[in-house]
Amino acid sequence: MAFIDLNDGSAISGMQAVVNEGSAAWDALDAGGVSTGAALRVKGKLVASPGGKQAAELAVEEIDVIGTADPETYPLQKKRHTLEYLRSIAHLRPRTNTIGAVARVRNQLAYATHTFFQEHGFLYANTPIITASDCEGAGEQFQVTTLLNGFGAGEWTTPASVVDEQEAMNKDGSIDYSQDFFGKPSYLTVSGQLNGEIMACAVNDIYTFGPTFRAENSNTSRHLAEFWMVEPELAFADLNDDMDCAEAYLKYCLNHVLEHCDEDLEFFEKNISKDNLRERLRNVASQEFARITYTEAVEHVLNAKKKFEFPIEWGSDLQSEHERYISEEVFKDRPVIVRDYPKDIKAFYMRLNDDNKTVAAMDVLVPRVGELMGGSQREERLDVLERRIEEVGLEKESYWWYLDLRRYGSQPHAGFGLGFERLVQYVTGVENIRDAIPFPRYPGSAEF
Amino acid sequence: MAFIDLNDGSAISGMQAVVNEGSAAWDALDAGGVSTGAALRVKGKLVASPGGKQAAELAVEEIDVIGTADPETYPLQKKRHTLEYLRSIAHLRPRTNTIGAVARVRNQLAYATHTFFQEHGFLYANTPIITASDCEGAGEQFQVTTLLNGFGAGEWTTPASVVDEQEAMNKDGSIDYSQDFFGKPSYLTVSGQLNGEIMACAVNDIYTFGPTFRAENSNTSRHLAEFWMVEPELAFADLNDDMDCAEAYLKYCLNHVLEHCDEDLEFFEKNISKDNLRERLRNVASQEFARITYTEAVEHVLNAKKKFEFPIEWGSDLQSEHERYISEEVFKDRPVIVRDYPKDIKAFYMRLNDDNKTVAAMDVLVPRVGELMGGSQREERLDVLERRIEEVGLEKESYWWYLDLRRYGSQPHAGFGLGFERLVQYVTGVENIRDAIPFPRYPGSAEF
Repeated sequence: MAFIDLNDGSAISGMQAVVNEGSAAWDALDAGGVSTGAALRVKGKLVASPGGKQAAELAVEEIDVIGTADPETYPLQKKRHTLEYLRSIAHLRPRTNTIGAVARVRNQLAYATHTFFQEHGFLYANTPIITASDCEGAGEQFQVTTLLNGFGAGEWTTPASVVDEQEAMNKDGSIDYSQDFFGKPSYLTVSGQLNGEIMACAVNDIYTFGPTFRAENSNTSRHLAEFWMVEPELAFADLNDDMDCAEAYLKYCLNHVLEHCDEDLEFFEKNISKDNLRERLRNVASQEFARITYTEAVEHVLNAKKKFEFPIEWGSDLQSEHERYISEEVFKDRPVIVRDYPKDIKAFYMRLNDDNKTVAAMDVLVPRVGELMGGSQREERLDVLERRIEEVGLEKESYWWYLDLRRYGSQPHAGFGLGFERLVQYVTGVENIRDAIPFPRYPGSAEF
Repeated sequence: MAFIDLNDGSAISGMQAVVNEGSAAWDALDAGGVSTGAALRVKGKLVASPGGKQAAELAVEEIDVIGTADPETYPLQKKRHTLEYLRSIAHLRPRTNTIGAVARVRNQLAYATHTFFQEHGFLYANTPIITASDCEGAGEQFQVTTLLNGFGAGEWTTPASVVDEQEAMNKDGSIDYSQDFFGKPSYLTVSGQLNGEIMACAVNDIYTFGPTFRAENSNTSRHLAEFWMVEPELAFADLNDDMDCAEAYLKYCLNHVLEHCDEDLEFFEKNISKDNLRERLRNVASQEFARITYTEAVEHVLNAKKKFEFPIEWGSDLQSEHERYISEEVFKDRPVIVRDYPKDIKAFYMRLNDDNKTVAAMDVLVPRVGELMGGSQREERLDVLERRIEEVGLEKESYWWYLDLRRYGSQPHAGFGLGFERLVQYVTGVENIRDAIPFPRYPGSAEF
């Protein structure tokens, strides 16, 4: 007897196919070609499995080798490969247990996202990827251009030739961006929020779910140059509505994967997180999140009996170690929403609280990870928003359309953002965010 | 009595709010601020409406003006605006009936897409947006770079300064792309298909739904520089499976919007398409699609009793007028799938048929529009694929990972692509594709 572990990629556990010596199928085995990574068409009878490992197995009658995989060269052998090595063969790594399971969990989290918001009447809105609007600018942005197009490495004989040939040079030697595709410098978006506000101020609650980009030169296990964000925006809503929505959304996602991906989560529990992963997720999904102010959070950290790497004082940002201390120790492994942060460490568009010192911002902290989502009520008062834009040194003129939303039929609205790969990382326990997306982009790497 | 047309953006028809003279609410009206575009909080009793236009109306007791909209300056007055004008105020245009209805139909088409594929066991896969892979190259691509970053218009004093300051210049004066973010020239994707094949060869059927880009300098009503594509890829599937999937998917989408967007579709029927829009969609959703070969399609055109602008002969591509003639006249307003196109007018990765002249490609043609989807069975035979890559003048080395999918466990697979805005255009009847996406990008325009 020979056993074949057949797997079509739809689940961790394959189907055990049993070939009896002397059968017609046995001859096919003898002929070779049935090896790790080969694609097979197998016919047989589904029978109860005598072993305890699976309920049923396939008693094989016919084997057809559709695609071979030479064992001498096939890069995925049965042994365990490191996740680092697998990243170098991203075209084959979704065939492994770990990366395949990530793909399935990621899919269920994406579908849960759509289902949750659709069931609550949110419209899915596609905000732009390329933007020449001056409003963005948070973080470093990738530039999008057609001025260099066709000038690959080595083909650009002198720097001047580009501007000559493209006639894209001003008399003073600067680039004439009126010759670029969009008529001005344009960039990849860092967030769909401002456009999301446009939509929410028109068609009621919306959510975005699309790629965003950061050209930060950071080679860490927590950053990607290209990542997907979920950004709901709630019309006629305040910070409490926003927190309620974030809590309900996260719980919905966790319950959804617990229900639909149990086998994959069990695999991560045993092989990746090596702890009580599912219990932790169930715990977060079933508890009411604690809600405290930033000021209370700082007090908790200052009163802690433990030493932190980074000191804290009112006005400085919470570090990951502080966030984890609060959610893991102060609140005993319970998610915590911290609200009302000092205005000086938050974005200009967050609504100024009556104390004039804090803004209606909130971060959702979860045990083990720290911040998973962040949001705010948006400043809907035209005069306050204009003042804030000036205070932080931005140009009011660039924000003309954003200000128009406050000029015409302004209304209180609020939203939050979730880095989708962070959620995948959190749910699967994979340590490096590069394993939470099929084709990760980071400094020096945009292969495949 | 005064009437207020209240609308929260969730539907075309608002709620009629009635204010009686002498009531407390009347004083609020008198005080001003209740004008087109203002945001209001209104309290009252829901009562049966005496007029026949709506079942219920709101008998107003209290009005609270949350955000005014100065009638002197508010760009959206009650009169009808052209769609061209509305594009210049993309931050306000989703508040109009037409663009709001497009947003709602678009949302339902997106959700139908996810639901259809999820219900059929497809995994949603995120393929990369930025790519330094040499495999793409269909159409003109946008380049993504950080070499020019920070060098806005006028700030770049001499072309050389960029390479000096960035140290991104080789000795021969060419750009040193090893200094760019990804270490080589990188671009925005034109399709997720090749990466989709990676996923389908690992985790079974998948679909993508994400933005794609073309830097074509075409200012037409049918092209966008940034658009969303739906690209399913079916594992262990041939062209017949592919056609079945495309037909079922399109019908599902149409039935879904017919069910969920009747009021919006009625609006489009009356104001945009000015014909029997819903009947046409129902017609497509309920009929079996005709299926013919390219050779038969050419014969139909050659035998036509009418004159065409473009002549046709076997080997040349079908033009839109030919496609419409076939689906509208030959098949009497029935969708038609044309298959087996000449290999020389199709992409290298499409599976070569036994006649050595045609490939297993298919296009779905619908009345009024012509091609709405296009797909193919992929060449899964390593030697044939290598030969085709050479024949069309591409470099085999660039495709190493794509060829690996045929080298290790190759299997017949197939897929298709749908330009999502084309579908939105088709369903809503809007003439210009720039009105089918909230923030359209085209030459000279990436505002908002």
